[in-house]
Formats: sequence, C-alpha cells, structure tokens
Amino acid sequence: MKQRLFAILLMGSLGLVAQQAPRVNADRLNQNLDALSGYGRDAEGQPNRVAFSDGDLQGRAFVIGLMQQAGLETSVDFAGNIIGKKPGTRDLKPIGFGSHIDMVPHGGNYDGCVGSMAAIEVAQTLHDNGITTEHPLEVIIFSNEEGGVMGSRALAGALKPEALGVVNSTGYSMGQGIQRLGGDTTRLAEVIRPKGSMAAFVELHIEQGGILDRENVDIGVVEGIVGLRWWDVTVRGMANHAGTTPMDLRQDALLAAARFIQAVNEEALKMEGKQVATVGRIRANPGAPNVIPGEVVLSLEIRDLSDDTIDTLYKNIQERAESIATDSGTTFEFTALDTTGKPALTAGWIQKEIRDAASGLGLSHRQMQSGAGHDAQDMALICPVGMIFIPSKGGISHSPDEYSAPEHIANGADVLLATLLQLDAKLTE
Amino acid sequence: MKQRLFAILLMGSLGLVAQQAPRVNADRLNQNLDALSGYGRDAEGQPNRVAFSDGDLQGRAFVIGLMQQAGLETSVDFAGNIIGKKPGTRDLKPIGFGSHIDMVPHGGNYDGCVGSMAAIEVAQTLHDNGITTEHPLEVIIFSNEEGGVMGSRALAGALKPEALGVVNSTGYSMGQGIQRLGGDTTRLAEVIRPKGSMAAFVELHIEQGGILDRENVDIGVVEGIVGLRWWDVTVRGMANHAGTTPMDLRQDALLAAARFIQAVNEEALKMEGKQVATVGRIRANPGAPNVIPGEVVLSLEIRDLSDDTIDTLYKNIQERAESIATDSGTTFEFTALDTTGKPALTAGWIQKEIRDAASGLGLSHRQMQSGAGHDAQDMALICPVGMIFIPSKGGISHSPDEYSAPEHIANGADVLLATLLQLDAKLTE
Repeated sequence: MKQRLFAILLMGSLGLVAQQAPRVNADRLNQNLDALSGYGRDAEGQPNRVAFSDGDLQGRAFVIGLMQQAGLETSVDFAGNIIGKKPGTRDLKPIGFGSHIDMVPHGGNYDGCVGSMAAIEVAQTLHDNGITTEHPLEVIIFSNEEGGVMGSRALAGALKPEALGVVNSTGYSMGQGIQRLGGDTTRLAEVIRPKGSMAAFVELHIEQGGILDRENVDIGVVEGIVGLRWWDVTVRGMANHAGTTPMDLRQDALLAAARFIQAVNEEALKMEGKQVATVGRIRANPGAPNVIPGEVVLSLEIRDLSDDTIDTLYKNIQERAESIATDSGTTFEFTALDTTGKPALTAGWIQKEIRDAASGLGLSHRQMQSGAGHDAQDMALICPVGMIFIPSKGGISHSPDEYSAPEHIANGADVLLATLLQLDAKLTE
Repeated sequence: MKQRLFAILLMGSLGLVAQQAPRVNADRLNQNLDALSGYGRDAEGQPNRVAFSDGDLQGRAFVIGLMQQAGLETSVDFAGNIIGKKPGTRDLKPIGFGSHIDMVPHGGNYDGCVGSMAAIEVAQTLHDNGITTEHPLEVIIFSNEEGGVMGSRALAGALKPEALGVVNSTGYSMGQGIQRLGGDTTRLAEVIRPKGSMAAFVELHIEQGGILDRENVDIGVVEGIVGLRWWDVTVRGMANHAGTTPMDLRQDALLAAARFIQAVNEEALKMEGKQVATVGRIRANPGAPNVIPGEVVLSLEIRDLSDDTIDTLYKNIQERAESIATDSGTTFEFTALDTTGKPALTAGWIQKEIRDAASGLGLSHRQMQSGAGHDAQDMALICPVGMIFIPSKGGISHSPDEYSAPEHIANGADVLLATLLQLDAKLTE
C-alpha cells in the first residue's frame, strides 16, 4: 500500500514530488560498470567482448549475479536474452527496460553497458527501498545487439532464419552462438512476444552523436530511431589509356563518381531536417594509376526518421545522378541492398514522462533522434517504447575511447527509475 | 652507284621524286602480320604473347626467320633484343629502326607488331630492290617492351639491376626471362650503346589515342613522348558513425577526395596544352557503407611533353588540395612514387623528313605527341629519334579489339622506308 501511495503521489506536482523519488546509488552503479569492463579484454588490455566470445560469457555470468542480488527471478531465454523478472502487485502486462553488454570488435565500455548496468541498478534500488510496482517489471539484457540486434529481433519475431548462419569475428555463427549463450535455436518461436503483450519498454543508452556533450545538456529524449536504406551504385564510363586519351575525350567513371559523392552531400544538406546520406565504400576498376577508370562501384546509405524523407532524398540524388551521367557520358545504376531498418518512432506519451522525470530531477533535456539502431527499435514492434540518452564525450562510439562521466550515468539511471515509476502509475490510471 | 644516285635524287623535288621511291609489298607485310598473330594464343584463341611466354619464343623464332630471309645478319644480344644488321657502303654510324612483338596480358596484334613487321618489310624491300644505303642499318626487335621497356633500357644503359627481379604474368622474373630469350644477365653491360653511337632511330607504331582515326589523317608525326610522374595522395579526415554524425559536423575524407578528383580534372583542363592528369585508383578506409571514411588513398598521374608543365600542374593541384583541406577539416599528403618517365623529344629534323616522306607519298599527316611510352623514348638517350604513327580504330589499344587497316599499315611502312632513305642521304650531305 505504501508503494501504491508513492506511485500516486508521483503523478501529482511532478517538479516537487519527483525530487522525493528514490535515487539510485551512483557509486555502486559506476563500480558495477567498471567491474563489467574487466570481462573481455584482448592481449593489449583493450575492450574485447564481442557476442559469443569467452569475455561475453563471463560478462553475462557477472550480470546474472547482479540481477539475482537485486531480487530478480533471472533466466536465459532460447535466444540467449538474460531476463530478470520482478512481480507486480496486479495482473498487468509487464514494463520492460534494459540494453546489451556485447560490443563491436575494438569497441568501448559504455555503448550498451551503461543502459544494462543502470537497468539493474534501478531494480536494485527498488529492491533496497522495498518498492513493488503494480506492473510486473522485466530487466532484459539482449543478446548480440551489435551483430544484428539478435535478441530483440527474436523477441519481436523478426529474426530471419538465414541470420543464424552469419559468422561474427569470434568465428561462431549466430546459431552456434545462441547455443553457447544457453539458448536453443530449435525453440526460437517460443521467445516471440506477441504485439501488445508488453505495456512499455524503455532503454537508456549513451548518445553516439555528440550533441548532448557539445550543447552541455544532461538528458536526450529520443523521438525516434532512424530507418536506414543501402544501395550499391555502379557508375560505368569507358576504361582507357591515361596517357593517350585527351582530357576532353574521356568517359571517366571515377570523375563522374566524384561529382556524385558531392551531389549526395549537397542534396542531404539542402533538405530541411536531420536526414543523413553517406558514401562510405568505393572501388574503381580496373584500378591502376595509368588507366582511366571504366567502372566505379560505391555504397549509398540514407537515414531518417521518416520513410518519406528517405524516399524524397533518394529521388533527388537519383535525379542528380542522371544529370551527371548526361554531362559525362556515363551511366548510373542503383541496386537496393537488403540491409534496411524501418524508422521506429518512440511513443509521444513516454517521451513526456521522460521529460517530466528529467525536469523533476532538475536536469536539462532536449528532444533528439537516434541515428544509430538499438534494441528498442525492434521492441517498438511489440509495444510503445521510450529511449533516454546521456552525453558521450565527443560523440565517440564503437571505440575504446568512448566515455561518459559518472554523474551523467547516474543522472540517466535516476531518470530511468523515475520514468518507470511514472509509467507504472500512468498506465493504471 | 645506282643506289647512291637514287638517294641523291630523293633529296631533290620531294613531291615528285618520293613517288618514284620503292614501295613495300603491302600484301606480304599484312600476311606476315597475320602470321605473327598466330604465335601465342590462349585456350580461348585470344592473343597471349606476354614476354618470356612460349608464344613469345615462337613469335621471335618466326621474326628471326623473316629477318634472315631479308638478308639481315641476325643475332640476339645479351638483353634478348633481336638485331638484324645490313652493312652500308661507308663506315658510318648505323641508322636503327624497329619495335617489339611482346604484348600486355589480354593485348592485341597491332601494338608493336605493326612496327616490327613494317621494319622487316622495309629491309626485305631494300633487299629485293638491291638497294644498299651508305649508313649501316639495324632492324631492332626489342625484348619485353610491355614489361618495362627492358630491351631498349638495356641498350641505353638505363635498366636498373632491381628490375631483373620483377616477375611478369608468365611467372618468370625479368632475369629468368632474359636467359629464356637467349640473353645473359651477367653480360648486360656489353649491350649498352654509348650516347652518339647511332646516327638515328625511327619507330613506326599504332597511335593509341584515336586522334588520327577520328580526324581521318593517314600519318602522325610524333613531336615527343610524354614524361609521367605518379603520386599516392592520402586524405585524412575523421571516421565516424554514419547514422549519428550530422551532415554539418563531418570530416569526411571521401567527400574531400571527391572534390580533389574534380579539381585535378579542372586544373588539367584549365592549362593550355595537351597535359593529362588522372586519378585511377582509390581506396576509402574503413570502407563500410555505415562509416564516414576517415582516410582515402588515391593515385595521381600527370603526363606531358614538358617537365616544367608537369611541375606547374602539380603545383596547381597541390594548391587546390590545400584549399579543399582547409574547407573540409581534412589533410592531404602527397608521396611521390618511383615510377617516372622523363619526357623524350623527337628530333625536329627527323620530324621534317617524316613529313616530307608522307607528303611525297600523297598522305595526309599531322603533328602529335605520344601519350604512351615506347622503346624510342629510351633510344632518345643514345641518338636522335623519330616516330611515325598510323591510325588505330577508335584508339583502342592493349586489348584484343585493337585494329589498324591494311592500307594504313602499308602507308606507315612506305613512310618508314622513304624516311630512312632520306635520312641516309641527309646525314651524308
């Protein structure tokens, strides 16, 4: 009854009441984050906890121990997700929160880890304060996020069978990896959560774009996770002798490609909004210093929160390509690649709870989008989601140099805790 | 005496007299060219006569037979050059002419072969007509032109010892290849011709730029063979997440490289003259569609007849690079590569003899430069040189599709013959 009262109080004058909400133990949280970073190091002492590696297995064992200490009923599902359940006082759909502890090769100790340790710290704080929410809670530490958001895709029923054959830098395929994590590739159907089966999902994560750090803002309230589409673009001209072909008689595929790379940049900058377009990979054939390139293949990636914006930008880029082709005597061919991610909007009402929670804690905040993919993107297929960002120094990520300050990490965990308590109350109004 | 009189007559009213000069046997010349093309074919029947291959050895045996039929005293020097000598009536320095019969991998049957067969046909025509020049003549079929102008460099004393270790597509090193051709790598010093030891050298070759074909001109009078210089250009920006890094906060090395590629083209076009500049090779690192490239390495090649022009264009390109670097937050580093060729001018007075010979035969002609390297480039280190070009369809070369019409080939051989007779007379005036 005490907890129920507490939750109702939270719904009142938030600026005042949220300050009275329980706060996480900042020291314990940062100590746990530091301890987690000790699992999975390479011979040079650099972070090395790619999914399915020995370091990943050790880190997961550490996580399971912390979850059990926090009083969570902890298990590993058939997709290798670690799930810690805390019963609620009523028979409601669960509220989920969590992140991942695996990393890219040569990654860092904050991407995923901050959100994972903060989720467990929130559970520990509730446990320490004897708080039981009305909704059941689930702390979810997703398996193999960096290798294709494997765990969250499995939960959302969106993991394609062919993905199980993909081998990561450990040498294990995703299928072998699931077995290594204690999962079972023959029973993946059983981990699928039907749409609407969870009340909400909230993920805390470091911001990977450097905006919060640059603007000195405490909390990012994520409006959505951008969708992305990839193409291979093939530019064809005519290979010829670089010594004997006059400048004005060339059909230089690399020169046309150079104009195209500039056009991609110009078109992305020209539109209002936060869309990004990138050429990251390029190959010129035959690729000799003394031969005018006859063919160039390059990658085109476009990301935005809106599929329509992606379509419009792609159309504009294609028009520029046609014009370059005409001018230069070349042709452009666009081949859409399978690697796509649909834009995922977060729920407006969860954004509001995050804003209120931050304001209640006296923290500055701003709306922003996530340019990177996250587990929350797939969880959005199941239930309303929210995402909380904290500053990452210089926006560096996927690098051993990534860093978030201990106070920012504690702020993020406090906002996560307050948001969950608010949601618990709000959803039972 | 009859021959001497003939040569003197040639020096008279050329328009009239040259028409009375002997003419090559066009049918025999083209039949020999066709026969040569039968030596060295791959499993699909495509031309395949890379230096040191079995096809090269067979083609050389065929050439030696033709030279002996033409009454030449034929031998192979220690660098594998086939040399056919015809004594003169006086004790003068020899006049040389010839080309090469080896080809690039997947090459064609005209590059080098036309000049080689025409040189032998000229010797055969002199033999058939009982003509003996005052100067000794030397038909030289150079070894391994395509693999580094090996034979002519050896004659000029410009073959570097380290070149002997270079392995070509046959799997043989240059050193092993010389032994295979009947040369001797321990006696290369003996093949060096001192500067001034030959009276002149003339090479007939297909034009590889398509100008004669497009303008429907019979004969190209080569002013010089361009020099070339190579650089590796490294552009450094900052690799970053393509999803989370806003367009206006990027230090995209590939975008800067794209601007540079355009600048190279613009600067080469801006200057008066025939200079060419090419970016043929490019690599972006890390080279993933979802990562903004942090580093790009590309090749820069500049060619011109004048070293000063190459210097000026390079300076202009460097200035543009500095400006792009400042605008884009990147850096450019230029590393000069060892692969350089010095420009080689042909002798003005030999150009005049070629023009007169063409006019005398009623053939149209124009001045032009050679954008490709040739054996004559190294022979220019020893003696005054001249080069005669004939049309090549579409300017295609280094391809099985290269083609020159039989009448153009015969025209070239006739101009070569007339030029040699004029030079023989002129040099004894």
